[in-house]
Amino acid sequence: MSSQPSHPALLIPGPIEFDDQVLQSMSHYSESHVGAPFVKTFGETLTMLRKLFQTEDPASQPFVISGSGTLGWDQVAANLAEPGDDVLVLHTGYFADSFADCFETYGVKATQLKAPIGDRPQLDEVEKALKEKKYKLLTVTHVDTSTGVLSEIEALSKLVHKVSPDTLVVVDGVCSVGCEEIQFDKWGIDCVITASQKAIGCPAGLSIVMASGRAIKSFQSRKVPPTSYFGSWKNWMPIMQNYEAGKPSYFATPSPQLVHALHTTLTQITSIPLADRFAAHRKASQKVKKAVADLGLTQLAEKPENQANGMTAIYLPKGMTPPDVLPKLMQRGVVFAGGLHKQIATQYIRFGHMGVSVTDPNRDDIDRAIVALKEGITEAQQAMDASAR
Amino acid sequence: MSSQPSHPALLIPGPIEFDDQVLQSMSHYSESHVGAPFVKTFGETLTMLRKLFQTEDPASQPFVISGSGTLGWDQVAANLAEPGDDVLVLHTGYFADSFADCFETYGVKATQLKAPIGDRPQLDEVEKALKEKKYKLLTVTHVDTSTGVLSEIEALSKLVHKVSPDTLVVVDGVCSVGCEEIQFDKWGIDCVITASQKAIGCPAGLSIVMASGRAIKSFQSRKVPPTSYFGSWKNWMPIMQNYEAGKPSYFATPSPQLVHALHTTLTQITSIPLADRFAAHRKASQKVKKAVADLGLTQLAEKPENQANGMTAIYLPKGMTPPDVLPKLMQRGVVFAGGLHKQIATQYIRFGHMGVSVTDPNRDDIDRAIVALKEGITEAQQAMDASAR
Repeated sequence: MSSQPSHPALLIPGPIEFDDQVLQSMSHYSESHVGAPFVKTFGETLTMLRKLFQTEDPASQPFVISGSGTLGWDQVAANLAEPGDDVLVLHTGYFADSFADCFETYGVKATQLKAPIGDRPQLDEVEKALKEKKYKLLTVTHVDTSTGVLSEIEALSKLVHKVSPDTLVVVDGVCSVGCEEIQFDKWGIDCVITASQKAIGCPAGLSIVMASGRAIKSFQSRKVPPTSYFGSWKNWMPIMQNYEAGKPSYFATPSPQLVHALHTTLTQITSIPLADRFAAHRKASQKVKKAVADLGLTQLAEKPENQANGMTAIYLPKGMTPPDVLPKLMQRGVVFAGGLHKQIATQYIRFGHMGVSVTDPNRDDIDRAIVALKEGITEAQQAMDASAR
Repeated sequence: MSSQPSHPALLIPGPIEFDDQVLQSMSHYSESHVGAPFVKTFGETLTMLRKLFQTEDPASQPFVISGSGTLGWDQVAANLAEPGDDVLVLHTGYFADSFADCFETYGVKATQLKAPIGDRPQLDEVEKALKEKKYKLLTVTHVDTSTGVLSEIEALSKLVHKVSPDTLVVVDGVCSVGCEEIQFDKWGIDCVITASQKAIGCPAGLSIVMASGRAIKSFQSRKVPPTSYFGSWKNWMPIMQNYEAGKPSYFATPSPQLVHALHTTLTQITSIPLADRFAAHRKASQKVKKAVADLGLTQLAEKPENQANGMTAIYLPKGMTPPDVLPKLMQRGVVFAGGLHKQIATQYIRFGHMGVSVTDPNRDDIDRAIVALKEGITEAQQAMDASAR
């Protein structure tokens, strides 16, 4: 039984539902950010992130900074690129446009390779683009939260290493880390940025980044200093290294409570094989996708290989909009999200299935949501039919 | 009685001890960041900040962004200054050096006006500096956490308006908002940056900013776009305005739990007259300063008018270092901080007296700390005398 007060199950693509212990860690009594107990907690947290990302290379560098997933973009744009550099942004939805905006803010030239809505750029298109210009880095959104499109990180990374070996491979894993497989070392990824509040299962407020030894080398050989202060790895890298080595260190005050919550969820996540965690998300996702198909509905991501395992973006029946359905789901105790992709925002809803809602056998969030979705859509359809009479 | 587990009283200059209700708000169950309940909570929080800063001008604009006090510097440097601008940084300790670094990161030319350690730049020196060059803005650290030096914001602001009326008055209020008087409108301040974890009494993780209508106008008439993405007011201003107007809005995911905690503490703070709160801090500070003097110790801030009301930076007896004393305080259940000002870090300790430790009549943190300080110093002195024999 959860010790949380009764509340609707939050099944949007983040923030997600949180485990009781994780939420209790948020109430940890006040500690000095440079005192031995917290230094230990923060250090262990950074070390557990290495496990989560499946990196054993000691040159890999984790960062945990108060902020949000978006701050990860600033970190990439301000530390791994320099003003005037060209970068290639693979577009699978809203978040690529924003990442490109972020690069432009820092004087970095972003070229977007766009796929039709619900699809992802194909490998041959990416290869062609990489051969046309020298790119400092390529970014790919692992799961675009606006479309539910999954990108193929392993194949992409291999392609980049083959075709343009100096180009860094940067993954926006905000909606994937913790629910989609990421083998940081084996796949040759240079940087993954993510956030605390999605499949990692910690409340929002932390920007989480893993950089490879190659990325750190590239950062260290910059011609100009980092172009952000709060997001500067020059400022943060010694701090992260000191915390992980058990030494107090100060640049800006971290959030002890959020770091405690992250420590708790990472302890839980790394206590079972990661493969089991990913399998649980795949299984729940298949159940959701089957239910959606059984209702006669389609997904933005049409092709099965394009479909994320932690969320589903569902087209509504023709003429139905999110405000027709979402309140009916809320009445049934589940919260879905509306559309986010500007061109089609009124035509679809998003169902997040990540974290404890999927992995905790005592929770029936997903089954209840599937029933609610069926009833809600049926009821909305009946209302539409009645008003059309 | 506190419902928090027994723990040493955290009496460093932030983070501080937290009220039970505030900590409980940190465990709030998961909510959508764009759902009606959270939008209401966030909107009310922004409105309460106007009260805390004593601003009634509707053109004033509050910002609450996941980050830390440091992110406030980025916001100032990236939104209120433009590359090539000159800014005047008044130096009363460590934090002016860092703020100047931050400006330089964004291509802004920072000129520092330095005072000797423990002192602050005098008004006639500031006047002279303002007449020598055209500065886009002047920054002053209201309380420098490294020295405990208090700056005279009202007089400074009047001076700037008289001598250089186009120069914006920017206050680093990280260690002052909530314990030192700030009359935003009446004193003609253009921007105050602060953080959640000091006298505001909310756990760390939020950057809090108040900008005047004049500052916003200056921002809106920039020649080049803001030079930060995550810290860009172009991205955040519509979001803050929408939340305060009760409308959901998205740029980057805020931290619902931290915002709930901020809402709780601001509700408490604004439920009594602010004057009473400031008086309570002055009273506790006088008690601490008297105890320090009674022990024969001196403060970094020698002149009474330079002394902060939320913290005290105390020189140790000659030859004694923080590691000689801090563990003895810890044994007595109180946590002080070591020195932070690089030139003299080993010669002093810092005692924070802010928030519930000062305002909650059920707490005896300050009295216990004064006793612990006396005993700790005496014991350390005895140990030194013994080893000198």
